[in-house]
Amino acid sequence: MIVVMRHGAGQAELDAVVERVRSLGLEPAVSQGEERAIVGVKGATARLSPDAFSGLAGVLQVVRVSAPHKLASREWRSEDTVVTVGEDASRAARIGDGLTLIAGPCAIEGEASLRTTARAVADAGAKMLRGGAFKPRTSPYDFRGLGEEGVRLLAQVGRDLGLPVVTEARSAAHVEIVDRYADMIQIGARNMQNYDLLMEVGKARKPVLLKRGIAAKLDELLMSAEYILSEGNENVVLCERGVRTFEDSTRFTLDVSAIPVLKAQTHLPVIVDPSHAAGRASYVPALARAGVAAGADGVIVEVHACPAEALCDGAQALTPEAFSALARDLEGIASFVRRTPADSKGGRTP
Amino acid sequence: MIVVMRHGAGQAELDAVVERVRSLGLEPAVSQGEERAIVGVKGATARLSPDAFSGLAGVLQVVRVSAPHKLASREWRSEDTVVTVGEDASRAARIGDGLTLIAGPCAIEGEASLRTTARAVADAGAKMLRGGAFKPRTSPYDFRGLGEEGVRLLAQVGRDLGLPVVTEARSAAHVEIVDRYADMIQIGARNMQNYDLLMEVGKARKPVLLKRGIAAKLDELLMSAEYILSEGNENVVLCERGVRTFEDSTRFTLDVSAIPVLKAQTHLPVIVDPSHAAGRASYVPALARAGVAAGADGVIVEVHACPAEALCDGAQALTPEAFSALARDLEGIASFVRRTPADSKGGRTP
Amino acid sequence: MIVVMRHGAGQAELDAVVERVRSLGLEPAVSQGEERAIVGVKGATARLSPDAFSGLAGVLQVVRVSAPHKLASREWRSEDTVVTVGEDASRAARIGDGLTLIAGPCAIEGEASLRTTARAVADAGAKMLRGGAFKPRTSPYDFRGLGEEGVRLLAQVGRDLGLPVVTEARSAAHVEIVDRYADMIQIGARNMQNYDLLMEVGKARKPVLLKRGIAAKLDELLMSAEYILSEGNENVVLCERGVRTFEDSTRFTLDVSAIPVLKAQTHLPVIVDPSHAAGRASYVPALARAGVAAGADGVIVEVHACPAEALCDGAQALTPEAFSALARDLEGIASFVRRTPADSKGGRTP
Amino acid sequence: MIVVMRHGAGQAELDAVVERVRSLGLEPAVSQGEERAIVGVKGATARLSPDAFSGLAGVLQVVRVSAPHKLASREWRSEDTVVTVGEDASRAARIGDGLTLIAGPCAIEGEASLRTTARAVADAGAKMLRGGAFKPRTSPYDFRGLGEEGVRLLAQVGRDLGLPVVTEARSAAHVEIVDRYADMIQIGARNMQNYDLLMEVGKARKPVLLKRGIAAKLDELLMSAEYILSEGNENVVLCERGVRTFEDSTRFTLDVSAIPVLKAQTHLPVIVDPSHAAGRASYVPALARAGVAAGADGVIVEVHACPAEALCDGAQALTPEAFSALARDLEGIASFVRRTPADSKGGRTP
Repeated sequence: MIVVMRHGAGQAELDAVVERVRSLGLEPAVSQGEERAIVGVKGATARLSPDAFSGLAGVLQVVRVSAPHKLASREWRSEDTVVTVGEDASRAARIGDGLTLIAGPCAIEGEASLRTTARAVADAGAKMLRGGAFKPRTSPYDFRGLGEEGVRLLAQVGRDLGLPVVTEARSAAHVEIVDRYADMIQIGARNMQNYDLLMEVGKARKPVLLKRGIAAKLDELLMSAEYILSEGNENVVLCERGVRTFEDSTRFTLDVSAIPVLKAQTHLPVIVDPSHAAGRASYVPALARAGVAAGADGVIVEVHACPAEALCDGAQALTPEAFSALARDLEGIASFVRRTPADSKGGRTP
Repeated sequence: MIVVMRHGAGQAELDAVVERVRSLGLEPAVSQGEERAIVGVKGATARLSPDAFSGLAGVLQVVRVSAPHKLASREWRSEDTVVTVGEDASRAARIGDGLTLIAGPCAIEGEASLRTTARAVADAGAKMLRGGAFKPRTSPYDFRGLGEEGVRLLAQVGRDLGLPVVTEARSAAHVEIVDRYADMIQIGARNMQNYDLLMEVGKARKPVLLKRGIAAKLDELLMSAEYILSEGNENVVLCERGVRTFEDSTRFTLDVSAIPVLKAQTHLPVIVDPSHAAGRASYVPALARAGVAAGADGVIVEVHACPAEALCDGAQALTPEAFSALARDLEGIASFVRRTPADSKGGRTP
Repeated sequence: MIVVMRHGAGQAELDAVVERVRSLGLEPAVSQGEERAIVGVKGATARLSPDAFSGLAGVLQVVRVSAPHKLASREWRSEDTVVTVGEDASRAARIGDGLTLIAGPCAIEGEASLRTTARAVADAGAKMLRGGAFKPRTSPYDFRGLGEEGVRLLAQVGRDLGLPVVTEARSAAHVEIVDRYADMIQIGARNMQNYDLLMEVGKARKPVLLKRGIAAKLDELLMSAEYILSEGNENVVLCERGVRTFEDSTRFTLDVSAIPVLKAQTHLPVIVDPSHAAGRASYVPALARAGVAAGADGVIVEVHACPAEALCDGAQALTPEAFSALARDLEGIASFVRRTPADSKGGRTP
Repeated sequence: MIVVMRHGAGQAELDAVVERVRSLGLEPAVSQGEERAIVGVKGATARLSPDAFSGLAGVLQVVRVSAPHKLASREWRSEDTVVTVGEDASRAARIGDGLTLIAGPCAIEGEASLRTTARAVADAGAKMLRGGAFKPRTSPYDFRGLGEEGVRLLAQVGRDLGLPVVTEARSAAHVEIVDRYADMIQIGARNMQNYDLLMEVGKARKPVLLKRGIAAKLDELLMSAEYILSEGNENVVLCERGVRTFEDSTRFTLDVSAIPVLKAQTHLPVIVDPSHAAGRASYVPALARAGVAAGADGVIVEVHACPAEALCDGAQALTPEAFSALARDLEGIASFVRRTPADSKGGRTP
């Protein structure tokens, strides 16, 4: 950590900073420049908050140079983590080891339609099935999913087709249900900083799919992953799903840069959700291809046997046929994604 | 709701839209323009999702023209709501009826420092006391508050000084505690779309202070208020606390426009939090004044008896002296805030 | 265009809107809903400004449903435009017909280094050479390029190697010089709404590479292209180069969604600039691959024979070796980019 | 400037950085921490670009700690600059010395309407008259102003009423005209980084009103001011007019935080434009009040004798009556804006 003093700050202000450093058991290194003084803070600063200095008089700026997310950081674990989803080894999906396609309906609406869609995505090459049972909806008057009944249905269909399943938990109560029936617990974008929920899934047995919040910096996404990791659950997969910007021709703006940045900073797998980013089916294939080309370890896509009849987000669902064509293209693209020397060197590269 | 068809959409596609409108018990009004057809949807559309049409072939755009937040909307309740906080009428605060100042430390750190700060803000004119016991922190390694013990301490100090108190609940378990001891329950920005938590406080007895998420559109803030109102809790106060933009010289960008926009769209009171927006004490007075000048019903400010010693966010806390000077300025400014004819006409004015 | 009246607007206000429509030679279509009236405006509205109605009393919202950029719009010209760059047919580049790679240094620094870099990118498969002579720099104290001398050098080197060249013009005076020596005139992101400059290049003979502003909506980019097209220059290539968001781990956020959205809305070619978006060489390959996978017609990349010695933006320049490896990957990825039925149908698809 | 090395960077990489520092005539100060090395750069670094180091191997981050805008910076000139507009001392406006109101129509449409509006705003307390003659319009098909004829008309009306006038120049050719007839030259938001135009007005005799670009960081606004100052024109007034964010209920988001931040960082006056930020007249008074309360030295407001008839942006123009009421409120609010100790101490306070 570096504490930059203001031009014109006095000796007493500088001394107070130095004293604060020492009182924290750390070592100060003062450098007096032409225009201002700078205090380097040496020692175990990774978990130190800039708050420790930013309130002191005469302080201009506090610069953090260590990543505060130790467990998630590639600086401290250089080899890629592979997350295994599904308890039955013969049908488990391995995320972080090649390209993993996850597909299914936005919301689970009933057994028949779920089976139709699930069979179609399995045939097209999906390795996991997705479907929402506890849907977060902006309006209290919209369809919010089938709840526990939906989770059970999803698990049953997944088992029948040999596909591990992932579904969202919105609250601690849901975590218990999802952890019991499903193979992977999804934390949605709106809950990326719901710390109580993060601690809850940190104690769960199943792997976690953590979606980036729509206004979360990548450092904050890694801090949220750190919440889960620090509770003991080491199986976290990150998901870029679009951030909110001024551009409104798509629902969100898919931040493909997030993929190489995250791959440099963390050992955790990173997948991409083109459906929520686009908000419109016709743009989904382009975004899915872009995500894979940028180096994503997988793609999670909404597919519906009959998008026009969907109870939720029909506009962004692919038909099974469109998904099948897309899956072939994605496999082809993945074969041209080489890790450049800079990417693969390990070490944090922001 | 208006469904805009693409240029070149055929009769069959138009018919499908018309049929969908009728199947929902609504009335279609087709208007065939030179370049494209448009279908007006008449009837009770306020709670209808655009999803009902956006997935249909040939649809270019779905435009919502009714506010989907009925209970929060000024179109349906034109007079201003006043929220009373505190059960003892003699010391209760009324938000929405003049200017209400709320102040106190970021986090409750202990009884002595809390009493010192509380007495100072009361003397300076604060009508309510704030203080965090369940702190949401980006890093799992930062101080997260005293928990239930903190809430009890806050309530005790508030009672002794005759100040109603507000504190944040981060989860359903906290709601029960805060509802029992405190006078108002705060929902933080990170939880603005934690719908399970919103429903929980919707069932609580105490009024709710709902903070805007850092990337939430004002329509979404109103939808979150609607979640609370639709569960039966009519005492909701909205709080603008800065949104996330590209500008990084302040922690967030205080969106003062939100105040006149919200006052036009909703009957609920609106207050402003300059401390979290600024992230630095020296900017807080300017932002507080701006909020009041823009028409806010109150201000919630972080004050600490000794900012340099604060365990959390010391850089943004005002000293008691600075708060006292600010309070006098705010009262003066408030006397020049006239409701313009356009503002007071009622009716939604986005 | 649709004019939405407020709930509670009176007959006199509605009549005033209807009269305004008629006074503009257009035809009103009033639809009286349960909650509010809506006035459809029929006729030649593409070039009508919403200003014509938004100031009238009782108007809630004005919705534009025709693209105001007629010449750029795919609704009015469905086949893809191919832009030919370079007057000598044998070595001309065709943008919009397969994948076109454009590469070269950020700034032209001198003949020797330019020749070295140019030869390397030509060997690696680049079809055009880029290099800045009139550099826009945020600080007045930074290197601003060699000016006319630089343009002449670039043209000479391009001619020697058989590569058409593109370089930026920052003002009307530069347009004359660039139009004389170079094969394509670049308008930089900062000048996307410099309308006088747009009109100037609209009158030039050479094709134009128009970069998207860092906060420009895609509609605005198309309106800027319309300025050029409406002056008679039909050879415009659009370039996505990253937009400004809250995320600061990359210099800008590459908006790959822009590619499918633009391909749906316009017949003009679209290329992508991963170098300025990333701001760091190690992220450039991932972004370039993503752009091509999303359907870009080309990529413009900064390459420098010795990045550490570059006078400008060395941190984002690829070495010739890295560019060569990237070029091979991009060709491979391009072969898997299929136009989906929805993309290729023509018609505007936002 | 501080160069932060990566964890794991080797001695050779560190040596290369140290050598680069020395080759620039500066002095390196290496500090070897537990996790990484840091190199402080001492000497005249204000005009040094981070590019000098960011391309070197092993460099993680380059942190600038000196403001690169020397002439604009308050660190180097602590007393407030007052800009005098108008050559006739008896009627000149002084910006930066009390509250200055500037008002007038968006576009100059003709003599009669201009005189009516000008007389009304003078009566209401405006000290300067504004009006556009060279209008930047997003669409090439919208009204673009009366040009030179308009500037002459504005100057004539201003002279008759004793009001100095300000109008925008969009290109070098306009600068000559505006400099000749008007009292102040406005650079619009779209041209904030049109460096050739900035250098042109840097050579003009008249003061400059520089509007912030819609996606410009405050540092960039100050760098653009530096372009003008470094050409010899010392009379620059900055203007906050709203930035582009995700929120679309107002046209732009007025960043009132910009006012205290700029007042801390620069000695130049800062005014606020609530009209373009709001995009709707009913929100303009609230934003104007907020700007003044945040410490702005003035307000520039669009007023039209008959907004519904305006050829440009009628929706955001105040009537003369509304402006008159607003002017009284602004004077009252200004009397409660105290400079806090932190604000007035001088020195940069970001």
